[in-house]
Amino acid sequence: MLICPLDFRYGRKEMKAIFSEDRRIDLQLKVEAALARAHAKAGNIPRSAAREITCAASIDIVTRERVYEIEAETKHDVMAVVKALSEKCGTAGNYVHLGATSNDIIDTTTALQMKAALDIVEADLLALLSTLAGLAEKHRNTMCMGRTHGQNAIPTTYGFKVAGYVSEVLRHIERVRESRKRICVGKLSGAIGTAAALGPKAREVQTLMMKDLGLGYEEAATQVVCRDRYTELVCLMAAICTSCERYATEIRNLQRSEIAEVAESFDAKKQVGSSTMAQKRNPITSENICGLSRIVRGFVTPTFENMVLWHERDLSNSSAERFTLPHVMILTDDILAKMETVFRGISVNKENMLRNIKAAKGMIMAEPVMMALTSKGIGRQDAHEIVRSTSMKAEEKGWDLERALWQSPEVKKHFTKEELARVMDPANYLGFAPQMTDDVVAKARKILG
Amino acid sequence: MLICPLDFRYGRKEMKAIFSEDRRIDLQLKVEAALARAHAKAGNIPRSAAREITCAASIDIVTRERVYEIEAETKHDVMAVVKALSEKCGTAGNYVHLGATSNDIIDTTTALQMKAALDIVEADLLALLSTLAGLAEKHRNTMCMGRTHGQNAIPTTYGFKVAGYVSEVLRHIERVRESRKRICVGKLSGAIGTAAALGPKAREVQTLMMKDLGLGYEEAATQVVCRDRYTELVCLMAAICTSCERYATEIRNLQRSEIAEVAESFDAKKQVGSSTMAQKRNPITSENICGLSRIVRGFVTPTFENMVLWHERDLSNSSAERFTLPHVMILTDDILAKMETVFRGISVNKENMLRNIKAAKGMIMAEPVMMALTSKGIGRQDAHEIVRSTSMKAEEKGWDLERALWQSPEVKKHFTKEELARVMDPANYLGFAPQMTDDVVAKARKILG
Amino acid sequence: MLICPLDFRYGRKEMKAIFSEDRRIDLQLKVEAALARAHAKAGNIPRSAAREITCAASIDIVTRERVYEIEAETKHDVMAVVKALSEKCGTAGNYVHLGATSNDIIDTTTALQMKAALDIVEADLLALLSTLAGLAEKHRNTMCMGRTHGQNAIPTTYGFKVAGYVSEVLRHIERVRESRKRICVGKLSGAIGTAAALGPKAREVQTLMMKDLGLGYEEAATQVVCRDRYTELVCLMAAICTSCERYATEIRNLQRSEIAEVAESFDAKKQVGSSTMAQKRNPITSENICGLSRIVRGFVTPTFENMVLWHERDLSNSSAERFTLPHVMILTDDILAKMETVFRGISVNKENMLRNIKAAKGMIMAEPVMMALTSKGIGRQDAHEIVRSTSMKAEEKGWDLERALWQSPEVKKHFTKEELARVMDPANYLGFAPQMTDDVVAKARKILG
Amino acid sequence: MLICPLDFRYGRKEMKAIFSEDRRIDLQLKVEAALARAHAKAGNIPRSAAREITCAASIDIVTRERVYEIEAETKHDVMAVVKALSEKCGTAGNYVHLGATSNDIIDTTTALQMKAALDIVEADLLALLSTLAGLAEKHRNTMCMGRTHGQNAIPTTYGFKVAGYVSEVLRHIERVRESRKRICVGKLSGAIGTAAALGPKAREVQTLMMKDLGLGYEEAATQVVCRDRYTELVCLMAAICTSCERYATEIRNLQRSEIAEVAESFDAKKQVGSSTMAQKRNPITSENICGLSRIVRGFVTPTFENMVLWHERDLSNSSAERFTLPHVMILTDDILAKMETVFRGISVNKENMLRNIKAAKGMIMAEPVMMALTSKGIGRQDAHEIVRSTSMKAEEKGWDLERALWQSPEVKKHFTKEELARVMDPANYLGFAPQMTDDVVAKARKILG
Repeated sequence: MLICPLDFRYGRKEMKAIFSEDRRIDLQLKVEAALARAHAKAGNIPRSAAREITCAASIDIVTRERVYEIEAETKHDVMAVVKALSEKCGTAGNYVHLGATSNDIIDTTTALQMKAALDIVEADLLALLSTLAGLAEKHRNTMCMGRTHGQNAIPTTYGFKVAGYVSEVLRHIERVRESRKRICVGKLSGAIGTAAALGPKAREVQTLMMKDLGLGYEEAATQVVCRDRYTELVCLMAAICTSCERYATEIRNLQRSEIAEVAESFDAKKQVGSSTMAQKRNPITSENICGLSRIVRGFVTPTFENMVLWHERDLSNSSAERFTLPHVMILTDDILAKMETVFRGISVNKENMLRNIKAAKGMIMAEPVMMALTSKGIGRQDAHEIVRSTSMKAEEKGWDLERALWQSPEVKKHFTKEELARVMDPANYLGFAPQMTDDVVAKARKILG
Repeated sequence: MLICPLDFRYGRKEMKAIFSEDRRIDLQLKVEAALARAHAKAGNIPRSAAREITCAASIDIVTRERVYEIEAETKHDVMAVVKALSEKCGTAGNYVHLGATSNDIIDTTTALQMKAALDIVEADLLALLSTLAGLAEKHRNTMCMGRTHGQNAIPTTYGFKVAGYVSEVLRHIERVRESRKRICVGKLSGAIGTAAALGPKAREVQTLMMKDLGLGYEEAATQVVCRDRYTELVCLMAAICTSCERYATEIRNLQRSEIAEVAESFDAKKQVGSSTMAQKRNPITSENICGLSRIVRGFVTPTFENMVLWHERDLSNSSAERFTLPHVMILTDDILAKMETVFRGISVNKENMLRNIKAAKGMIMAEPVMMALTSKGIGRQDAHEIVRSTSMKAEEKGWDLERALWQSPEVKKHFTKEELARVMDPANYLGFAPQMTDDVVAKARKILG
Repeated sequence: MLICPLDFRYGRKEMKAIFSEDRRIDLQLKVEAALARAHAKAGNIPRSAAREITCAASIDIVTRERVYEIEAETKHDVMAVVKALSEKCGTAGNYVHLGATSNDIIDTTTALQMKAALDIVEADLLALLSTLAGLAEKHRNTMCMGRTHGQNAIPTTYGFKVAGYVSEVLRHIERVRESRKRICVGKLSGAIGTAAALGPKAREVQTLMMKDLGLGYEEAATQVVCRDRYTELVCLMAAICTSCERYATEIRNLQRSEIAEVAESFDAKKQVGSSTMAQKRNPITSENICGLSRIVRGFVTPTFENMVLWHERDLSNSSAERFTLPHVMILTDDILAKMETVFRGISVNKENMLRNIKAAKGMIMAEPVMMALTSKGIGRQDAHEIVRSTSMKAEEKGWDLERALWQSPEVKKHFTKEELARVMDPANYLGFAPQMTDDVVAKARKILG
Repeated sequence: MLICPLDFRYGRKEMKAIFSEDRRIDLQLKVEAALARAHAKAGNIPRSAAREITCAASIDIVTRERVYEIEAETKHDVMAVVKALSEKCGTAGNYVHLGATSNDIIDTTTALQMKAALDIVEADLLALLSTLAGLAEKHRNTMCMGRTHGQNAIPTTYGFKVAGYVSEVLRHIERVRESRKRICVGKLSGAIGTAAALGPKAREVQTLMMKDLGLGYEEAATQVVCRDRYTELVCLMAAICTSCERYATEIRNLQRSEIAEVAESFDAKKQVGSSTMAQKRNPITSENICGLSRIVRGFVTPTFENMVLWHERDLSNSSAERFTLPHVMILTDDILAKMETVFRGISVNKENMLRNIKAAKGMIMAEPVMMALTSKGIGRQDAHEIVRSTSMKAEEKGWDLERALWQSPEVKKHFTKEELARVMDPANYLGFAPQMTDDVVAKARKILG
């Protein structure tokens, strides 16, 4: 059955608060106050008026109830806040919203919301980075099977697997940081962006106001901020979520009954599991991450379409953005937090990792054997043929490759039993997995400070 | 600024109720009751027990509060309903949920929700069809410009434009009706679908239960109903919404200041409009429809991805479906209702339609002139050349094409002034627009009964 | 590295031929001929002219070279064919393309292409159905593990798994058949659809022409056929491909080294495999199907966007459709053919299926044990507790569940050792998997005739 | 009708060459040569061998024919190039491909292709920037209507509209430059990335090789380069194309018959236009851009899905990437080049721009009138009411707003006729459009150098 969408079960408190009505109104008030202060600095209005407006510009003074009351009458959300604020400012009330158009306030408020939301996402990424770096370090030498096409390939270490995630998360942090200057951008340029209603100091006021708010500004706006900014944001969030889907899918695969190398921590109290099959431990958080990640990706399409506004703006983007932007940020935060929890609590089963390597019966060591044969002066072609035919023999008889190789006169001629055993030991064929893990972890530590 | 997603402003009451917690619990109870009745009919449980369960299976008896209480303890939503129901059934309580797995209840409940939701969507489509048919009829002869590439082409009628929508909505109704048998499908076949826990009469019980509920059943289920069904549903809803986006885009274009042929009805009380530009009448509902339609299309992608479940099921679809399916149905209903309202209240400005035709200065009548010349025995090639050169002359001089043609000796030789005027009259070049409108309207009326 | 897109390696000959230039020109000629015949029947042109046009309307007579020559001059692809055809018709040449606009020919030709393409896709589906039905039948009793969340659940049969696919493919065939009447639809109604240039018998001519071609017609067209039709087609093809992705993903998972229950047939000659790891058998065709399926889904988005044409048409859809529609049909055919090949050659390893069930150490039989306890009069709650605690003990000691149960006095009191063994035998807990398989196969056979 | 996909008509020569088979093979050879040089520098192989390999590593020496011959035998594209190269290197042949796995070569070659493709895209963006900057400058004072919701709003300048595009293109250039370090990244770390087969100097060799090729390297690879890199690339290209769709849509709207403010340059020779309506000038390149942009966006979805590879790699991404990456780059280049051409040849009709402003009958000047009234000491509320009621009167009577205002005693009391005319002159209400245009153009010039 389907849970009612009204009852939005996902998401964490702090991020959801950013998109609450209270915060929305409060941020709108902060934007109006910053506008007043900028006007005052530019000499357009008295400094005392700006002070009065700044003092009143808080949800605690201008209440949500009053805003809603006015909105119910006027059917205009931005002007309702303006009027409610004006009422609280005495004579300074006339200076509220001076020269601004609704979208100056709307898009600047959104920029503040996105800035706050990106702060959380960046903190989430750093938390995930820290957990992953710790996990990679801990398991730098934990040998496990490397797999391609779902098939056994050659051994690797679990820490090195995780190091790949560390490296990817580092890139995401870099992307978030680089994109901020393009995403956290407001505007104060009036209807259609020419700033005609803002007086001779329009541009100075915009600069002062955005500096005050810690935002950039649109250099040549239409009535709205250009939507390529939101596309960059949503694509990046979707990429972050999809990276998590990759890690979660790996967990789901490694937690399979037949593989059983890792497991999500199991909170016996929290989870009843199947109503008929009591014994199962399902990777439910990882599955949940995969599903939510699809939702975030689904918002990429409307976000692109919203870029193609007509002329100085149309309103087709509005209903979509109210929907997509909060969900994208709330779900990205939720996914990152869940991912971090999963990795923090993950149980790594080294015994099963070894068991799975052993179950490959040495077949995964064909490559080093071939290399060892070559190093003994056997031609590449010949070495390949020895390994190929011996592998087939081993498979036929159900033997380990080592045992089959030891039957081969060619092998016996070049190797002692101990030498062969050393070549066949997966622990000797991990390449630079531990060292590369160290380097990536060090890089992460540097970012983590 | 962004409105909080928790405060889901879109959607109509009736459709949202289908996805409310109360309805969800109530439908789950109905499913459990139908299961009990089926067991009783099959002789698996006493008929009295089924009666008792049926009597108790209502949200009014099994309260939401009690269900939540149990869920808080057990963390299992389906079993919470089962337990809450059992408590109200006395000794019959042991027969509740007999042999079923959670997903038997979940997917069957979803099927009931989809069935109810499709009833609403079909009613919406019929209401839209009725309004469109009336509009097409009313304007079967209302001449207006036909446009291709945004350029004047040749005249058509507004009713014929709308007839195209009527025809498309008829196809959507046909699609909804054809798809029902594949979408409204439950299951009762236990864990992984083999019905092993359901006893020797498992299949009979499934047949009886689904017949009772008015649903089909999955013939060879896994633990869940096969997800191609939801894909069909979501793609169809997205197509319906996108059709509406087409009509809404046409309205937005025809309502442009420079065209002004139609306008959304304007509720002066409801709409303040621009905070700085008081005089504007914006097609805001049509813009809203376009934005919401993008959201629905955005849900197509995760729905496809959800089809690829592993083995007998994984849970990755679950978090996504809870999100996508209710939103898709709620938004489709919302879009259809808004579209119907827009067309019901649309004002059609015949004067401006004529003005725009006149502004084309006869250039749009090049085709009939050419045909008339040909009918007088002039070769196609020559006729084309006469019209081409005369058009250029007219454009140069700023004349009407008619005036320019009347200067041409070739034309004068073959036509009287009245004849030429008749050829140049757009009203004489509407083809079968009115007749085809009649036919499509008649077809709609037949469906509407 | 990336293979050049010009060198389109995918796709099968017959389907690709439908989208070749030769076929395109030939079908366009057939459409022009059908138009001439319809005009003749309606009395608009001499029957002899229609005959002459029909005789000339073939790519063998009107050559591709000549069409290209004219197109190079006139830069108009449709008129190039018209002119090339006219040249070959003597005096009847004047009657070619009478009253039609380019899009009458373009969209009608596309309808013929889609009809031919759907014939192939339907044949592909039937071939896949036949192979799957055979496979399901063959393995109706082949016991294997049922899995949920990637975890062992309870046993099923491989045939029943496949029966699920049979059932889904049956639905796809039903969908294709139902959609044909909406997809295979042409138009003959001139510029912007009013049929003004087509004379007094315009509608009769359209009816005759489309009947001749085996197509439906657009009842109230704009300049083009309404694009909801292509959306239905592309969504359906994408759903078919995604179903195949589900089956292919199942194969990839079941072919994992640790599971090894099925394997794609391995053509030693065709496949070198890894350049460094010679011993691997990779499910490459299944992986290929998954990748191609994503491409087809990618075309869903532009197809939806193409629906929103302005007024009586714009040209924004054109460049996209030239790209999407052929690729969608070619790739769907390719995927279906590959899928059929994979299932035809699949090797099913019954020993490994049993091995994997055995490896579960009876834990998957918790459900039937609980049911058996209940049937002996033990309360549900108590039965659950016995199984739970015994399972934990078994897991601790590394025992089979059966062995652990046999230690339980409660169990011993109610069961003989033989009874317990019978309960614990997975072969006795397959439910109706074989019977439901039979039913679905029978349904398929009926369609296959 | 549908053009055969084999006959890929879109795209420009230089970009298509990057994805040709010849270039692919040549780049693969360059990668193998760089590997050999790196081995030599690290002391793993003789310097003379590296020299020999470098000399032979060219498509002119190792021919495409020979590569295909070997591939036909071995069915392995990478090894075919390796063998064909080895044959040309005499004794040094044994040192070709030393320690590498196929994907080391494949992903590194792709990185070189992406690098070359990004060079072209960046050059395209700079060319477009230059054209747009020139256009913005030229029309910094060209007054035209600003529109919101498709409705007249207040006046702006055409140069300022274009300045908005300049600003957006500047951001895209910034994004491309920032992303290069993440996108142009190869790998040399063997099967599953541990570099086990690459000997004790594996990491040194990787560093040397990538430095030689001008690429970064994957710090902790799996068998492949991490796919978040391609997602960043494709999302960015899609955003660039969608920005162009916005500009193209604006042109299509401004070129409407009723607006006619701009027009694509019309190559009479190239374009026949409608087969029945000879007089039309359609914005066909802009429409084409819109359609192709949708295709590029369609490739975003499969690119995201390709990120979720299993374990150290699966092959599901491969078939999709061969398709998506070249098409994305070829179409982005094509769209950018077409967009530049359109803007280079665009004709701007200043007369029509003025005509459209005049047609608004002063209604668009309500805002400055209100401001002027306020500046004369009239309260905001009262000013609003004066303008509102006067506007309604004007509309009723079909008067200009100026005329209606001049009837108002309140207005007459405060303004002379000349003052009122000055307030009502749209040229006096352009705000900072020209100045902001200058600034953005100056910023562009600085980047253009």
